[in-house]
Amino acid sequence: MNINYMAELLATVSERASRLVGLGPKPRPALARTDIAVLAADLVSHRGEASGVAIAAEILSRYAGLAPEERIRFLTGLVERFGPDEERVARAVEAWRRDPSPLAVSELHIAAEPLRQELLRRLNLAPGGTLALVRLRADVLELTADEPALKVLDTDLVHLFSSWFNRGFLVVRRIDWSTPANILEKLIAYEAVHEIDGWDDLRRRIEPTDRRCYAFFHPQLADEPLIFVEVALTAGIPEAVAPLLAPDRAPLPAKEATTAVFYSISNCQAGLAGISFGSFLIKQVVEELKRDLPQLAIFVTLSPAPGFARWLDQERNSDESPLTPAERQVLDALDSPGWHRDPAVAGRVEPVLKAAAARYYLEARTDRGRPVDPVARFHLGNGARLERIDHLGDVSARGLEQAYGLMVNYLYDLDRIEENHEAYAERKVVAASPAVRALLKRESSRELA
Amino acid sequence: MNINYMAELLATVSERASRLVGLGPKPRPALARTDIAVLAADLVSHRGEASGVAIAAEILSRYAGLAPEERIRFLTGLVERFGPDEERVARAVEAWRRDPSPLAVSELHIAAEPLRQELLRRLNLAPGGTLALVRLRADVLELTADEPALKVLDTDLVHLFSSWFNRGFLVVRRIDWSTPANILEKLIAYEAVHEIDGWDDLRRRIEPTDRRCYAFFHPQLADEPLIFVEVALTAGIPEAVAPLLAPDRAPLPAKEATTAVFYSISNCQAGLAGISFGSFLIKQVVEELKRDLPQLAIFVTLSPAPGFARWLDQERNSDESPLTPAERQVLDALDSPGWHRDPAVAGRVEPVLKAAAARYYLEARTDRGRPVDPVARFHLGNGARLERIDHLGDVSARGLEQAYGLMVNYLYDLDRIEENHEAYAERKVVAASPAVRALLKRESSRELA
Amino acid sequence: MNINYMAELLATVSERASRLVGLGPKPRPALARTDIAVLAADLVSHRGEASGVAIAAEILSRYAGLAPEERIRFLTGLVERFGPDEERVARAVEAWRRDPSPLAVSELHIAAEPLRQELLRRLNLAPGGTLALVRLRADVLELTADEPALKVLDTDLVHLFSSWFNRGFLVVRRIDWSTPANILEKLIAYEAVHEIDGWDDLRRRIEPTDRRCYAFFHPQLADEPLIFVEVALTAGIPEAVAPLLAPDRAPLPAKEATTAVFYSISNCQAGLAGISFGSFLIKQVVEELKRDLPQLAIFVTLSPAPGFARWLDQERNSDESPLTPAERQVLDALDSPGWHRDPAVAGRVEPVLKAAAARYYLEARTDRGRPVDPVARFHLGNGARLERIDHLGDVSARGLEQAYGLMVNYLYDLDRIEENHEAYAERKVVAASPAVRALLKRESSRELA
Amino acid sequence: MNINYMAELLATVSERASRLVGLGPKPRPALARTDIAVLAADLVSHRGEASGVAIAAEILSRYAGLAPEERIRFLTGLVERFGPDEERVARAVEAWRRDPSPLAVSELHIAAEPLRQELLRRLNLAPGGTLALVRLRADVLELTADEPALKVLDTDLVHLFSSWFNRGFLVVRRIDWSTPANILEKLIAYEAVHEIDGWDDLRRRIEPTDRRCYAFFHPQLADEPLIFVEVALTAGIPEAVAPLLAPDRAPLPAKEATTAVFYSISNCQAGLAGISFGSFLIKQVVEELKRDLPQLAIFVTLSPAPGFARWLDQERNSDESPLTPAERQVLDALDSPGWHRDPAVAGRVEPVLKAAAARYYLEARTDRGRPVDPVARFHLGNGARLERIDHLGDVSARGLEQAYGLMVNYLYDLDRIEENHEAYAERKVVAASPAVRALLKRESSRELA
Repeated sequence: MNINYMAELLATVSERASRLVGLGPKPRPALARTDIAVLAADLVSHRGEASGVAIAAEILSRYAGLAPEERIRFLTGLVERFGPDEERVARAVEAWRRDPSPLAVSELHIAAEPLRQELLRRLNLAPGGTLALVRLRADVLELTADEPALKVLDTDLVHLFSSWFNRGFLVVRRIDWSTPANILEKLIAYEAVHEIDGWDDLRRRIEPTDRRCYAFFHPQLADEPLIFVEVALTAGIPEAVAPLLAPDRAPLPAKEATTAVFYSISNCQAGLAGISFGSFLIKQVVEELKRDLPQLAIFVTLSPAPGFARWLDQERNSDESPLTPAERQVLDALDSPGWHRDPAVAGRVEPVLKAAAARYYLEARTDRGRPVDPVARFHLGNGARLERIDHLGDVSARGLEQAYGLMVNYLYDLDRIEENHEAYAERKVVAASPAVRALLKRESSRELA
Repeated sequence: MNINYMAELLATVSERASRLVGLGPKPRPALARTDIAVLAADLVSHRGEASGVAIAAEILSRYAGLAPEERIRFLTGLVERFGPDEERVARAVEAWRRDPSPLAVSELHIAAEPLRQELLRRLNLAPGGTLALVRLRADVLELTADEPALKVLDTDLVHLFSSWFNRGFLVVRRIDWSTPANILEKLIAYEAVHEIDGWDDLRRRIEPTDRRCYAFFHPQLADEPLIFVEVALTAGIPEAVAPLLAPDRAPLPAKEATTAVFYSISNCQAGLAGISFGSFLIKQVVEELKRDLPQLAIFVTLSPAPGFARWLDQERNSDESPLTPAERQVLDALDSPGWHRDPAVAGRVEPVLKAAAARYYLEARTDRGRPVDPVARFHLGNGARLERIDHLGDVSARGLEQAYGLMVNYLYDLDRIEENHEAYAERKVVAASPAVRALLKRESSRELA
Repeated sequence: MNINYMAELLATVSERASRLVGLGPKPRPALARTDIAVLAADLVSHRGEASGVAIAAEILSRYAGLAPEERIRFLTGLVERFGPDEERVARAVEAWRRDPSPLAVSELHIAAEPLRQELLRRLNLAPGGTLALVRLRADVLELTADEPALKVLDTDLVHLFSSWFNRGFLVVRRIDWSTPANILEKLIAYEAVHEIDGWDDLRRRIEPTDRRCYAFFHPQLADEPLIFVEVALTAGIPEAVAPLLAPDRAPLPAKEATTAVFYSISNCQAGLAGISFGSFLIKQVVEELKRDLPQLAIFVTLSPAPGFARWLDQERNSDESPLTPAERQVLDALDSPGWHRDPAVAGRVEPVLKAAAARYYLEARTDRGRPVDPVARFHLGNGARLERIDHLGDVSARGLEQAYGLMVNYLYDLDRIEENHEAYAERKVVAASPAVRALLKRESSRELA
Repeated sequence: MNINYMAELLATVSERASRLVGLGPKPRPALARTDIAVLAADLVSHRGEASGVAIAAEILSRYAGLAPEERIRFLTGLVERFGPDEERVARAVEAWRRDPSPLAVSELHIAAEPLRQELLRRLNLAPGGTLALVRLRADVLELTADEPALKVLDTDLVHLFSSWFNRGFLVVRRIDWSTPANILEKLIAYEAVHEIDGWDDLRRRIEPTDRRCYAFFHPQLADEPLIFVEVALTAGIPEAVAPLLAPDRAPLPAKEATTAVFYSISNCQAGLAGISFGSFLIKQVVEELKRDLPQLAIFVTLSPAPGFARWLDQERNSDESPLTPAERQVLDALDSPGWHRDPAVAGRVEPVLKAAAARYYLEARTDRGRPVDPVARFHLGNGARLERIDHLGDVSARGLEQAYGLMVNYLYDLDRIEENHEAYAERKVVAASPAVRALLKRESSRELA
């Protein structure tokens, strides 16, 4: 163990790999003509220690050229042939059962580590290896539904990535109009919340004095943002997204802004799903903005409510919902296209919709006891609080379809984040402003009436 | 598992951590007044998710201020209190025994992962965290002899570092006279083979046209070389080190060099012991030199023989040694100080010493069947071959004491490295030049005579 | 003189400036309320020595806000009020007439230097001052036609810029898809030869493996290219521009190219007109390309013939032209729109057009004895030779209008550049390939027939 | 003129150059065998336009290898053969006498510009040309005393450098322990005030939290500081230099400092003598420090008084000095070595010395009416005020010899700099603190007594 652990591990790994390859005496065929699975075995063998970079590069380049069904075959092979040493596992289990000492459990952990982990670590030797492995995991995720056997491969990748993409290694960089074009084009490609419509639209989001954009980068993926957040500097908490994105709006001098609005957060790498950075990015950006513009007092999101329409429809169709007949009648207006353009209708709908939304956020729960809305789970989990419900915040086709136009603001108050987070994590408490709570109370009192 | 693995892991981790902390209702004491062990528990709890950077920084700064015995106490606490969840291990063992499926062994691996791993990953959130953890491991290694219980902690650190310091993440950088002084001073501090005597000596090693120096860096430790190699460009394979380091030598124009001599390789971080980079560094430097100076034809070391004197003394004291009485008599000269300065004596000693050295490298073996000399194990393990034995290569006090002045050259021939490495790793074959083998044959034939 | 020259100069300058300002005792009005002309006088006074940065910044910011007629007034003021010290000039003239020694002529030079020069040097203290002065010169050039008095101001600016933008200070940088967007957008704005139609078109010109783009930058104008050249790597000398710019063409692997084609060179700064960099840029890019891709053998332009159509029309309308009636009849086809799309017509036109073009390049001359075509003057002046005339090389509306579709290739053969340049500069010899000369001979022989 | 000015200038220049070279038809000898003076003529000829970089590099490399007397010959040749076009000067003088219009004076200025200016501009094309020209001027300055004819060459260089080294092009960079060693070694070499005794001493001046060092760099001379200033952060205005430089002093946390002390300013390039940057550097460093450490309230120097001992000795030897017999007797102690180590003696000397110093700074004047002390002229010229006189501030051998141990503090109060500078520049007023003035008054009243 201790300092010889790596050496021993490598020795064991190589021995097993030699058996895998059925390693006879030389000569072996040239790299280019060897089967990719044999190459993988080579890579964890002694040969991989001497020529790892070349073999790893060959495997990854070969993999990139495979058709989907060939990829499944290769990935399945990794699961089947590159597991842990079963005998060693058996020995470790026996030893642990005799004496569950720290040493025994440590050996258990090591013995149960699949050979795949070492294979993946060695694939990283290839130039561009890290990005190739992130993309390989995107394949795994896409194919996982059909191939449950691949889930252990995903576990390996997650385990590795949680070390490699440790947030201590990530770097926040500001994105602006002097950022290289090959990075900027990725923002256009990856923006997931409010689509960026080409270079002119992109420019409007990063160049004006009242716009900011920040992304996390990993040193090894210098041209590939991992996640980015778009920020608008404003003179108050905005209640709709269209004015923020309007092509002809007049920018606000940065020094006059009081509020930083996080209006879009997008993950860039499908292969890093579940390796969460969003929370860290927002907090770091808050610090950065405070340093640059000390007068900023409010840090808030303008967020979609992606599950609201579906939930409300269920309520409307359910006899058990507390919705009153009068309310149901008001909500029937939502079924007429264009309802939001008629001020009278929209005005009637507003109080009923907001009250329902308060219930959606504060009372509706998943089976596991969390809020129904996934965006809410993210921000509440970060320690933010639900600050305001915005009627007709997003009247795009998508905004109407998924949330009847509703948007919400989550407030990031750094002094309360820890407390909110703990209350949420331990006691499932949803932090909400008095104004939002009041919507609920009004609803409750109405019910009593 | 799959993409929710991390989320679940974090949830489990936090629950256990809460129990560790004995987490009651708030208020908790301010960071500065909390015990460091409680902080560690906090860091893996929900609180750590929200305020990880601050807590991690506090722990590491606190740790840096502890006295040795307090450090031992803290490290021991990590082993005792931050192991894996024993119930989960027990369940995983049972499940595996019922059905040793890939999923079951994967769960075994995960269940047996100690909470320490997550703690270490979170400590890395602190600014400077990576370096602090490397130094923490140096403590663990220093204290390990007395505290075998800490060995599992070392295993955790090695496991983490083997991911973090994956050679795919390391960057080779040339070190020269335009390198920042805070990096250069580390070369002076860490040079382990031929001590650097201040800034003027350092300059002589990196500034002349026929000198090169390269180091591996990790992006997170930008000012801390991990390992560095010093290279002399020469017109042939050198047989002694003093002329390479002479203050008044005339430099060779780089374009006229035919040979690159690796005359010193030094690790810089005690805390990365056993995480081997040396092999990779040499190979990458060979590539780099070839690109810059395509006329270079020979890549060779000039290396010490640190175990030779001790081994030879044993031979001389042993009745079972094949040394003849005549040879023993010649070698008696080694006991007179200054023997190497008398050309007649040195000339008599040379053939006997070289023949013995050939035996030392080619035939002497450790219990595990490897060469006795640790430097030989390193270079042969990299696929180099033993090229030449140099009489009076290093007549410094240290060179005489550890090797009776002997040095050797290992040849790095990139076309043969893989083959040599495999023969050595699998069949313990020591690659050696015909000239070195001839020394042995001469000895053998002499034995027959 | 010598080392005290600057000190004395400053003293003189300040004294005169004080008189200009009518400098009474303090207090003076705050910066913001002072007239811009008074500020200019301040800047060359003692006050400017102490507070130069602030005053220079105020002047340039104020200038940027002036309306055109106010700018003319300010610029005229510079000419009228910031000339040299007339008494000193008179004294220097007298001294020189008495004894035209080197010292006397040196004093003449210094005495005749207008105060404007020092004013312009001090304006450069403002952040962004250099760019502001380049833009101020663009104003001067635009206004010069109407205000001949401003020509001396232009001379001052040219004198200063020829020092500041000394080619030794310029840096060649490659422009590619990883270049910051704020630089790339300037390429779109400034491309003067073959318009860039948005970001997708730009990307096609700089991202593929067989495309290169280089620009000169000045350290003080880091985001402002001064001039840029677009290069296509091809397998032979191209005879038309459309295939080079086609959106759907298949890129050539860079390693397979034999030829580098400079198909567009654009100046970016109107204010640097007449400060020529183009020649240097091309030569430096040739060196750069040779280093990167040693297999490149031919360096050639694909250039417009902007004066050809006008010249040919004059020929066709002139009785003194050597054009035969038969040729004139053939050329009448050029007056029918779409002539180039009829292969029969285009085929008949080709020999007549090319022969005329040979005459245009080799024989037609300006009053000063130089070729009529401005692009030819540029490349021949650089030492290139006229390599080939390309029929229907550019059939865009502009190409047809200015050159009846004709383009030409100039060859940059570094070994002949010096010789060609000297022959051209001293004896007005136009370097041309035998093929181009042959076109002329054919024409000559025809004339004899 | 205007935009064709450069083209015409080049044409004229080249014609004259051709005559200089006696340019016949080719072939010319290869670059390497041509005389350096011929090369210089080549460089301003057409040949220089085509092959400027190569010729310029050859000239500068050749020049670097010349012996001193050969350098004088080359430099003299520049003066004799590369003057202005005398006929053109004569024509311009005549034109100006007929009509002294702005255009005529502009032509006078241009005509009188020596060909040397263009030659120097073209020498700058060589890689490293700027630095080589700065060193060439150092030669000119060194040789100027003996060769007054070279003074016009110096004037040309100063004229050029005042454009090239325009302060708008200079960059302030902080120097610290992470600065490249090849820059740091220049600090050791160039420190002119308080010698740096090797790397350990250097480190003590730039690494501790209460030390700063800043330098001006020119983009073209990236590794060559032009001037640097060393700063100590302290808790009050220091009155002696030794405690600031003591090897074993305890550093002050930067946040606790109230005062920034400029205790050493050194020029690095002899060839830039008279191109003054010091004033700008100090002011820019004050701004930088204020931004970093807003609590800093006082910016002050600790400066030598290099002319004081000589002046005081003259006073002591003069019958016209206002020194009283009693004072003269007290000052006689200065002639006994070690006087400053006897507290009683030093105490008696103090008031007399300080009173004399007040007179030295406030009343003694050069022929041109400026203070006698050159350091005082520099700081007062920058707008600083004389703040305090420090008895026994520098008791090194040098400090005692040149100033009987006296040092002084000059205060940089940014709000008063402009006013002080103008008063000094226009009315020769020396700004001094009431405390320093009081020393003088006491002396005056004493005289009356």
